Amino acid sequence: MSSSDIFIGETIGTAVLILLGGGVCAAVTLKASKARNAGWLAIAFGWGFAVMTAAYISAPLSGAHLNPAVTLGIALKDGEWGNVPTYLAGQILGAMIGAALVWVAYYGQFQAHLTDREIVGGPGAQDTAAKAVEAQEQGAGPVLGIFSTGPEIRHAVQNLATEIIGTFVLLLAILTQGLNDQGNGLGTLGALITAFVVVSIGLSLGGPTGYAINPARDLGPRIVHALLPLPNKGGSDWGYAWIPIAGPLIGAAIAAGVYNVAFA
Amino acid sequence: MSSSDIFIGETIGTAVLILLGGGVCAAVTLKASKARNAGWLAIAFGWGFAVMTAAYISAPLSGAHLNPAVTLGIALKDGEWGNVPTYLAGQILGAMIGAALVWVAYYGQFQAHLTDREIVGGPGAQDTAAKAVEAQEQGAGPVLGIFSTGPEIRHAVQNLATEIIGTFVLLLAILTQGLNDQGNGLGTLGALITAFVVVSIGLSLGGPTGYAINPARDLGPRIVHALLPLPNKGGSDWGYAWIPIAGPLIGAAIAAGVYNVAFA
Amino acid sequence: MSSSDIFIGETIGTAVLILLGGGVCAAVTLKASKARNAGWLAIAFGWGFAVMTAAYISAPLSGAHLNPAVTLGIALKDGEWGNVPTYLAGQILGAMIGAALVWVAYYGQFQAHLTDREIVGGPGAQDTAAKAVEAQEQGAGPVLGIFSTGPEIRHAVQNLATEIIGTFVLLLAILTQGLNDQGNGLGTLGALITAFVVVSIGLSLGGPTGYAINPARDLGPRIVHALLPLPNKGGSDWGYAWIPIAGPLIGAAIAAGVYNVAFA
Amino acid sequence: MSSSDIFIGETIGTAVLILLGGGVCAAVTLKASKARNAGWLAIAFGWGFAVMTAAYISAPLSGAHLNPAVTLGIALKDGEWGNVPTYLAGQILGAMIGAALVWVAYYGQFQAHLTDREIVGGPGAQDTAAKAVEAQEQGAGPVLGIFSTGPEIRHAVQNLATEIIGTFVLLLAILTQGLNDQGNGLGTLGALITAFVVVSIGLSLGGPTGYAINPARDLGPRIVHALLPLPNKGGSDWGYAWIPIAGPLIGAAIAAGVYNVAFA
Repeated sequence: MSSSDIFIGETIGTAVLILLGGGVCAAVTLKASKARNAGWLAIAFGWGFAVMTAAYISAPLSGAHLNPAVTLGIALKDGEWGNVPTYLAGQILGAMIGAALVWVAYYGQFQAHLTDREIVGGPGAQDTAAKAVEAQEQGAGPVLGIFSTGPEIRHAVQNLATEIIGTFVLLLAILTQGLNDQGNGLGTLGALITAFVVVSIGLSLGGPTGYAINPARDLGPRIVHALLPLPNKGGSDWGYAWIPIAGPLIGAAIAAGVYNVAFA
Repeated sequence: MSSSDIFIGETIGTAVLILLGGGVCAAVTLKASKARNAGWLAIAFGWGFAVMTAAYISAPLSGAHLNPAVTLGIALKDGEWGNVPTYLAGQILGAMIGAALVWVAYYGQFQAHLTDREIVGGPGAQDTAAKAVEAQEQGAGPVLGIFSTGPEIRHAVQNLATEIIGTFVLLLAILTQGLNDQGNGLGTLGALITAFVVVSIGLSLGGPTGYAINPARDLGPRIVHALLPLPNKGGSDWGYAWIPIAGPLIGAAIAAGVYNVAFA
Repeated sequence: MSSSDIFIGETIGTAVLILLGGGVCAAVTLKASKARNAGWLAIAFGWGFAVMTAAYISAPLSGAHLNPAVTLGIALKDGEWGNVPTYLAGQILGAMIGAALVWVAYYGQFQAHLTDREIVGGPGAQDTAAKAVEAQEQGAGPVLGIFSTGPEIRHAVQNLATEIIGTFVLLLAILTQGLNDQGNGLGTLGALITAFVVVSIGLSLGGPTGYAINPARDLGPRIVHALLPLPNKGGSDWGYAWIPIAGPLIGAAIAAGVYNVAFA
Repeated sequence: MSSSDIFIGETIGTAVLILLGGGVCAAVTLKASKARNAGWLAIAFGWGFAVMTAAYISAPLSGAHLNPAVTLGIALKDGEWGNVPTYLAGQILGAMIGAALVWVAYYGQFQAHLTDREIVGGPGAQDTAAKAVEAQEQGAGPVLGIFSTGPEIRHAVQNLATEIIGTFVLLLAILTQGLNDQGNGLGTLGALITAFVVVSIGLSLGGPTGYAINPARDLGPRIVHALLPLPNKGGSDWGYAWIPIAGPLIGAAIAAGVYNVAFA
């Protein structure tokens, strides 16, 4: 794979990943959407199939990492670091493009949602005024969750642990793919397995933090949230932003260590 | 593939696609259906498996395009245009047959639903009388959604953009299939991947416009809606009809361009 | 395949099919079940994976027909009728065993459900007393639906048409399997495709009649319902029983005709 | 496969299985989880994909039994018992590790849930005080269900029968895998089929007892529940613990007997 193929593949692939993944969050959250209130199962399947679609499209160009944690885990497994910066650059750029495309696809829905008086101030506003103020200060407004992840209970050690555990499972499944698919390549069966692994992590480990398990998936859209001219959008919760970066990278490193000791 | 195989395959395949796809909309919408109110996840899986079943059945005859946007994208990729009119003719005819079969399968449900005083006038009627009048004038009545798509927020530029983006993702996944499935053919694994790509687009990008992503899927059933002797059926919303035709074709053309530059 | 392998395979396979298929109806219907009110999506996936599991288990012995309509369609396609009686005998016997096993697995749930005063008389009782009487006379009580199918709107021509259309789609997908899976056999990929085809038919065409699409699936459990010593079980609705037998057989014959003309 | 590979593979695999399986129960049950009240379909898909992910990861090391009932069934089929103790040891250890990881990933959720006055005493408390006392005495408190299974209706014979039947279906599908996948190995397609077989059993036979169908899945987490310092956690319901051990082992033995007579 050439450097330009890797960059283009990761950019396109991560853009599709965030377009579809952020898209399902928009679809379920925004009030003028046909899929509003479709529930957590829709979120989990939506992200799983987003990963599958993005992996399928980008596999022929870049091998479909789409995730700095995957790039780190594979580099630690193979001992090859030369293309890592190219992968990371494509992933961050792609994640930002994808988040912007969600905004384009749901433009009217964002406008209607954020200018509706009942909704502005976030779900917290419905409980107590104090909570609403807190939500605005922390940036945990109603639409930030369409872009990046946030915890149900703010507890740095637990939030970090949950992201580490979730990414550890993801990486173990990705690293053992080579042992299971003798020569079939990632394209088809691997993409299906990966889809359902991601659905599984979403259903099982997504409850506390919303399962970033991918630093680019969280950071790219958070930057776009900060830049977009959305009315009443609230803060971008930068105080939390390091956890969905550090957690997945630590989880990937542990998985690569376990793989190198037990499976290689 | 002979011309008659293409025509027969596309006619049968698109009929099955619309029968199953329109069927899930009828099943979830009509009040005397066991699946009423089954929700958006049922819609998204229903259309995904509709595409899978139709693709699986028609693949041996016509290669299972079932969608003028797919036919356009593949023609732009391969540079072969000879069979395009045959594909389009089969797709439109098939879509009309499929929509008519939905009416047959749900005949009693349509009758009961449309002659129930509480429902006639559409969901809009429950909000304000003004909205009900607007709904009737625009033809966005309660059963048109079983036949063709319509926007939650009527905004031509955004609606067009959403259809372009959704079809772009679909076509990119279909065009890269040849790079992923070395000689496996569309029949089996490709049909599964396609199913879940369509579920993904439905969950993630279906919220604003109901994801036509296929001109035949929208136009064929809209014609049948206009022709069928349904009581209180409302208008067929022809003012919107150009968007689910133009959007998918533009999205497919962009995807073919990206494919030819980046993947070929 | 020997005659005894066919008989044993069809008996075991159809028993597993009805155990899992009837099981999901019991799980969603009976009030002391953890899955109560899980909804139509659970029903559709439950039956789809029931077919997959049963097909996977019985494929090595009998080729996994599990359905007189499938046996008829394949006989019409191949012109071989010698084993048809053996297939049918195993299917009916298996369906009865499966229905009895549902009763064993949900024994306490049936007892609690049927002796609860609020429930006896069926959902119809909640509307009007007249409807409750009608429901009892027609046997459309609350637990018959766990065993066999029944229409939402009783209309013989439409009910028959819906069963014909649903089975036509099923058979077309099964008959084209040989064209899609070059030598892979039914076991693995075919079982997955079949699963999702059945989910698709359930989501899209199950609304009016509950999609028998299989004479043995309906008749075997209906006989068991008539025989079991369930309190307050109501009638077995024999007046409807011919439709889920005739409809699927007609649909299969039409599909075999279309296959022989267009695909062979 | 070496003894140490088997032990490590089963330990890692069963830990992943219980982490993801217990995780989905925590996600749906605990009140400060984004997936709260996601319903039985989420539980069934969550456990199915948990088995798939765990099987995929551990298949290259140990062949992915992850379940003493699977180990028993395969030993009865093949007549080889040498590695059975190693399999069992890894499975019990892994199940305990997995349950502890669920507690880590949902630490804040457990604390918030168990110290909330409205919830303590279990769902039973909302009905009558008598039921609440009964629930506490039996240990059927609100969080035990995140660790191990329990019946809706306490009836030893039925509960045992349900576990026997469910495990019988699981084992029949696993034992016939060798006949269906000619040389493909468990890794990919087998993992997908197994996933959906487990979803099927969950949807169809999970209603009465919560489908342990695996002695290690129930015993390991129950031990961890007894050991963890959770506030208001209630008893561990040891009186029920023998049923999800005996039932699955009996079901597996019957399946192996049927396999050896009818399929071998």
